[in-house]
Amino acid sequence: MADLERFGVSMEADLLIRFDGLIGKRGYASRSEAIRDLIRRELVKEEWSEPDREVMGTITLVYEHHEHDLSEMLAELQHRHHDAIVCTTHVHIDAHNCLEVVIVRGRVSRVKTIAEQLISTRGVKHGELMATTTGAAVT
Amino acid sequence: MADLERFGVSMEADLLIRFDGLIGKRGYASRSEAIRDLIRRELVKEEWSEPDREVMGTITLVYEHHEHDLSEMLAELQHRHHDAIVCTTHVHIDAHNCLEVVIVRGRVSRVKTIAEQLISTRGVKHGELMATTTGAAVT
Amino acid sequence: MADLERFGVSMEADLLIRFDGLIGKRGYASRSEAIRDLIRRELVKEEWSEPDREVMGTITLVYEHHEHDLSEMLAELQHRHHDAIVCTTHVHIDAHNCLEVVIVRGRVSRVKTIAEQLISTRGVKHGELMATTTGAAVT
Amino acid sequence: MADLERFGVSMEADLLIRFDGLIGKRGYASRSEAIRDLIRRELVKEEWSEPDREVMGTITLVYEHHEHDLSEMLAELQHRHHDAIVCTTHVHIDAHNCLEVVIVRGRVSRVKTIAEQLISTRGVKHGELMATTTGAAVT
Repeated sequence: MADLERFGVSMEADLLIRFDGLIGKRGYASRSEAIRDLIRRELVKEEWSEPDREVMGTITLVYEHHEHDLSEMLAELQHRHHDAIVCTTHVHIDAHNCLEVVIVRGRVSRVKTIAEQLISTRGVKHGELMATTTGAAVT
Repeated sequence: MADLERFGVSMEADLLIRFDGLIGKRGYASRSEAIRDLIRRELVKEEWSEPDREVMGTITLVYEHHEHDLSEMLAELQHRHHDAIVCTTHVHIDAHNCLEVVIVRGRVSRVKTIAEQLISTRGVKHGELMATTTGAAVT
Repeated sequence: MADLERFGVSMEADLLIRFDGLIGKRGYASRSEAIRDLIRRELVKEEWSEPDREVMGTITLVYEHHEHDLSEMLAELQHRHHDAIVCTTHVHIDAHNCLEVVIVRGRVSRVKTIAEQLISTRGVKHGELMATTTGAAVT
Repeated sequence: MADLERFGVSMEADLLIRFDGLIGKRGYASRSEAIRDLIRRELVKEEWSEPDREVMGTITLVYEHHEHDLSEMLAELQHRHHDAIVCTTHVHIDAHNCLEVVIVRGRVSRVKTIAEQLISTRGVKHGELMATTTGAAVT
C-alpha cells in the first residue's frame, strides 16, 4: 500500500449521501478505504470465476452431531480431501448443536466440490461457503 | 427429524429440470433434502432480521499482518468483544498474508457491529460475515 | 510488567554455565527473562494443585477417525461438557489420522476429568493434557 | 487394531493395586487399553529422539496481547515458519489475556526451534510444547 494514487470520482448527490451513511455506519475511516474494499471484493469474486485459480474458502456448517452419524460422515468426507483442508474448528454450541468451520485451500473447482459435498450431507442444518483469497492477487 | 410429513409440490416442468440439474451437481440425495435446505436457509435469514436474537456468525478476514500494525489492532478490537468471540483460527497463508476466522456468538446487532469494525479496519484486504445460527430454531 | 525490581542470585559456577547454555539455545534475551519463565511455570503448576481453581487446559489427541466410531464418541463426550469446552481444532493429518486440540476452561477437577475421559477412550493413539492458566494469577 | 495378540504380564500385587486404582480413576475400560496407552506414549517419545523425524506438536501460549507489541511479534515469528505451522487457534480469555495454540508439523528439530522461539519471547507468561505424532508410527 506504499504508493497511493489519487483520482476523482463523480457521483449523484443522492447516491453519495447514501454511501456516506453506509460507511459511517460501518466505521470506515474514509471514502477511499470503503471504495478500496468494494474493489477488492470484486477482485476476489473475479478470482473465483477461474476454476483453476488457487483460492481459500471457509465452509461454515451447523448440525446436530448425533443425527445420522453426522460426526462420522463429515469426518470421513473431510479426510478424503485432507490435502486441501487446512484445519477445522469445532464449537460445541450446546448439548446437541455443533458449529464447524472448515478452512480450505485449493483450486476453485475443488473448493466448490468440497463445500457442496459437506453442505448437501443429510442432517446439516445450515451450511455456506465463504469465497476468499490467498491474498496474492489483492493488494 | 423423527416424524417426517409428506406433501406435494407443483412446479413448471422447466423449473423442475433446472432444479434437478442443480441438486444433481451439488450431490443432494433427494429433492426433499434440497428443499429442506432451502427452507432452513430462509429460516436462518429470518433469525438475522431480529436485532435481539441470539445467533452465531463467522467472520473471515484476509490481511497482511505487518501492514499498519494490523495484528495488534485486530487483536485489540477482538479483545474489546472477548465475551462474544468464541475463538479465532489463524492460518499463515504465506510469509505475508493471513487468513483469520473469528467465531462470534451473540445478539444480531452485536455480531454485525463486531464484523463491521473488523472488516472496515484499514489494511484488511477481504472480509465478510457469514450469518449462521445456534441451531435451536432450525430443525 | 511495569515496576521491575532487581535482586542478586548466587549459584555454583558449574550450574550457571549449564543455565547459560540452555538459555542461549532457547533464545532467551536475558537470564532474568529465563528465570521469570521458570517461576511463572511453577505458579501455573501451583494453580493446578487447587481443585476449585479456574484454569485453562489444552488437550491434544491423535486418533484414526474410522476406528470404533471414534469421531462420534469423542464428539459425544465433548458435547456433554460443552459449557467447559471453548473450541476444538481438528487437523486431518492424512487419509486416516486426525489431530484434535480441545481448549477447555473450568475448575481444575473438571478439566482433568474431561482430559482423562477423552484420553482413555479406546482407539485414541496419543493424548495429553497441557495444564495452563487464565493468566490472571501470573504477571 | 485388527489382530490382537494376548500375552501375560507379571507384577507385584502392590503395584497392580495402584495401577488398577489409577486406571479406574482415569476411566480406562481395561488394563490392556491402559497398558497400550503407556506403550504408545513411549513410542511417541522415541519419535522425538530422532531430529529428522516428521512429527506434530502443539504449542500453547498465554500472554497479554498489548504487552511489548506481542501480537505483532508472535505473528511475525509464526509467519517466518508459515510452511511448518498448520494453524493457530486464539482464545480471548478476557480483556487482556490470550491463549494461543499453534499446531506445527515438521521435523523434530524444526518444531523444537519454533517452540523455543515462541516460548522465550518476552512477555509470554506461560508456554509449553506438547510433543505428539502424525500417527503413522503408532498403531
